[in-house]
Amino acid sequence: MHLIRLTQLTQLTHRAGLAGLAQALAPRTAASAHCDLPCGVYDPAQARIEAESVKAIQEKYQANDDPVFRARALLIKEQRAELVKHHLWVLWTDYFKPPHFEAHPQLHQLFNEATKLAGAAGAKASTDPHVGQELLNKIEEISLIFWETKKG
Amino acid sequence: MHLIRLTQLTQLTHRAGLAGLAQALAPRTAASAHCDLPCGVYDPAQARIEAESVKAIQEKYQANDDPVFRARALLIKEQRAELVKHHLWVLWTDYFKPPHFEAHPQLHQLFNEATKLAGAAGAKASTDPHVGQELLNKIEEISLIFWETKKG
Amino acid sequence: MHLIRLTQLTQLTHRAGLAGLAQALAPRTAASAHCDLPCGVYDPAQARIEAESVKAIQEKYQANDDPVFRARALLIKEQRAELVKHHLWVLWTDYFKPPHFEAHPQLHQLFNEATKLAGAAGAKASTDPHVGQELLNKIEEISLIFWETKKG
Amino acid sequence: MHLIRLTQLTQLTHRAGLAGLAQALAPRTAASAHCDLPCGVYDPAQARIEAESVKAIQEKYQANDDPVFRARALLIKEQRAELVKHHLWVLWTDYFKPPHFEAHPQLHQLFNEATKLAGAAGAKASTDPHVGQELLNKIEEISLIFWETKKG
Amino acid sequence: MHLIRLTQLTQLTHRAGLAGLAQALAPRTAASAHCDLPCGVYDPAQARIEAESVKAIQEKYQANDDPVFRARALLIKEQRAELVKHHLWVLWTDYFKPPHFEAHPQLHQLFNEATKLAGAAGAKASTDPHVGQELLNKIEEISLIFWETKKG
Amino acid sequence: MHLIRLTQLTQLTHRAGLAGLAQALAPRTAASAHCDLPCGVYDPAQARIEAESVKAIQEKYQANDDPVFRARALLIKEQRAELVKHHLWVLWTDYFKPPHFEAHPQLHQLFNEATKLAGAAGAKASTDPHVGQELLNKIEEISLIFWETKKG
Repeated sequence: MHLIRLTQLTQLTHRAGLAGLAQALAPRTAASAHCDLPCGVYDPAQARIEAESVKAIQEKYQANDDPVFRARALLIKEQRAELVKHHLWVLWTDYFKPPHFEAHPQLHQLFNEATKLAGAAGAKASTDPHVGQELLNKIEEISLIFWETKKG
Repeated sequence: MHLIRLTQLTQLTHRAGLAGLAQALAPRTAASAHCDLPCGVYDPAQARIEAESVKAIQEKYQANDDPVFRARALLIKEQRAELVKHHLWVLWTDYFKPPHFEAHPQLHQLFNEATKLAGAAGAKASTDPHVGQELLNKIEEISLIFWETKKG
Repeated sequence: MHLIRLTQLTQLTHRAGLAGLAQALAPRTAASAHCDLPCGVYDPAQARIEAESVKAIQEKYQANDDPVFRARALLIKEQRAELVKHHLWVLWTDYFKPPHFEAHPQLHQLFNEATKLAGAAGAKASTDPHVGQELLNKIEEISLIFWETKKG
Repeated sequence: MHLIRLTQLTQLTHRAGLAGLAQALAPRTAASAHCDLPCGVYDPAQARIEAESVKAIQEKYQANDDPVFRARALLIKEQRAELVKHHLWVLWTDYFKPPHFEAHPQLHQLFNEATKLAGAAGAKASTDPHVGQELLNKIEEISLIFWETKKG
Repeated sequence: MHLIRLTQLTQLTHRAGLAGLAQALAPRTAASAHCDLPCGVYDPAQARIEAESVKAIQEKYQANDDPVFRARALLIKEQRAELVKHHLWVLWTDYFKPPHFEAHPQLHQLFNEATKLAGAAGAKASTDPHVGQELLNKIEEISLIFWETKKG
Repeated sequence: MHLIRLTQLTQLTHRAGLAGLAQALAPRTAASAHCDLPCGVYDPAQARIEAESVKAIQEKYQANDDPVFRARALLIKEQRAELVKHHLWVLWTDYFKPPHFEAHPQLHQLFNEATKLAGAAGAKASTDPHVGQELLNKIEEISLIFWETKKG
């Protein structure tokens, strides 16, 4: 079920890969050149995988009351959640351009809520896996818009 | 001139420091509790200082055509610009809350433009110090809103 | 009150220490016990996405002879290639277990070649996108084995 | 074409290598040449802001005995304290020059005490906000000397 | 006793340093050139020193049941253990070449076990210093092979 | 007051050099606990190994005028030089205590010169391996003092 979705995503990505290559060969202004250089390749899967890790750690935290295990779980969850934020920030700043924000006016708030939720996921409230699932849902919303803009 | 502005900012910060302490002692919801923990103290000066570094490097790049010096300048500018983005992203996600975005509807776009500009500042176009100055101006706009919300 | 609770947990831990060691010497459970916490979620897509970025940067390097653009391309490619190595190393150490290496004797060499190639991809030879493609092919080989072990 | 240009620059560099060394031995220019590039812009505010964060976390630690909150507080305080040390080390090594140390013989010890205190601030004793305040006081001492050298 | 071993290691390293220099001046293929650049100098001491730190923290964890001390010990041990893994991964990928793996067929498994053990050292089981010692023993095995290849 | 306590635990630490294990098992004050935890194990070899890498890269830079090779050499040298600074800063702040500085009054300046030289090693002047050798000599001076304090 999950594997199927991943495979589909992979196929999308492969197609996107070619699109990216086409883009790379297209003449571009200095502005897009310097913007595209660090980020010719984007994939919301990077944020999603880290967020899945956050949720998995929350489930293990609930299932194991060993204090050392829990101390490590909080530490590692903090790191994973920070990576979720970073990958989302990069998408928001480096991939999405003004036309995308005009076409999807909710994007700014969606990213702000998702990154806030990642912060929440790294924190007290988030030893509850439902918070991790909420984060995954936000990332899925962003992901759908992302792939739509790639198709566009 | 510059020193005067910095001193004033410092005084503002010191006052804000107390405000922050007051906040810290105030009862808070779980939501604000977990959000505030990593970020009880915010200051746009962190982004501004790194952006000043970006601009200073651009000026030195223009003034020195030694290839090794320029290679290092590009590398270090990249790092500084990345720090500018990080400090701005943290402010946007961790400090500013929904009421701020309602009171200042331009905030989302302002942060998106500033972080895009920081990306630009780390790139080809940005060996021109005017791009660094543009970045500093955006950060100043954000800073004014930030201190207004602190006073509020 | 809080300290007392923690101290008690601590005593539990002390006892758990030895139990944990015993576990560590046991073939399967301990290995997954200490390994699963940081890495309950794995996905070769993390390495693949960074490798696609490496190859995309190589394409752009070939398509743009501006020296500043190329200097930044080399820098960013280095960073992406380092991330490819890191994601592959984590898979090799944290996900794959002795039974996997018995079932797939080529895995050690495959990971060693892929990470060496990522190093190559970050270097001189690799301004040729064919090297980036070679890296992607190795990651695909690893990915196929990974998903096979997941199904297993 | 591009390679030729780079090779020529490279030959220049080769020659510049010795010239650079000569410069390095000269009292002021070379020192600023190699030192100023990464750090044309310095501001003790960077250390102060992180230290304010350390103290604010200490206040919150004292005000909240939730074990998860406290575990995160210790983790984040450790990170902030490390940043305090880093910003102070950079000032001590990259900004301050021999003439400053002659004019302010206490500077070495002041920086050593402040960074030791930042280490303390990251540790057990430092769940007491007074330790955070001590750290802020040391940074203020450094800051006063810093701005005096800037005026000079 | 330990100091004596360190001094000897240092002498070995110094000799290796010259060998490394000789290597650096020898003509090399593009392949080895780009591989050697980041890693002209290798020393298993880097992994060993971090592993000694892991074991020392384990000793102190056992000797101190203060909850804040233990929370910090777990955090710092995690960081040290991560560095052990990193230094070992770099040796495995960047220093050792196919002829080494043919001459020492156990090398792949040895590195995989050592890095898994470093993960263990960063985890629950590892609050027992015997796990840290096990890690040090694996690193010693790798170190002996490393210096043998350097002599070769 | 706090400093006095620090000095006392410093003496403990000094003696603890070799008897670190004994000390680790002995009951300790909070003050010594927080100081010893991150830094039970020190070795100037960490700085020396990175500095050898800096010098080796300088040799290779001089021996290879390929522009891509040289661009990568400058980047990697910058990273290695930064690590040299970090390892030296940690020794200066976390290992050396007031009695050491009284016994070796030149230590502060020695560390300041070594870290400045590491900065130089990461910069223009440093494409000359003699600068890397100068850095290694400073680290050797520090190393001799370090091992003397360990014996003491």
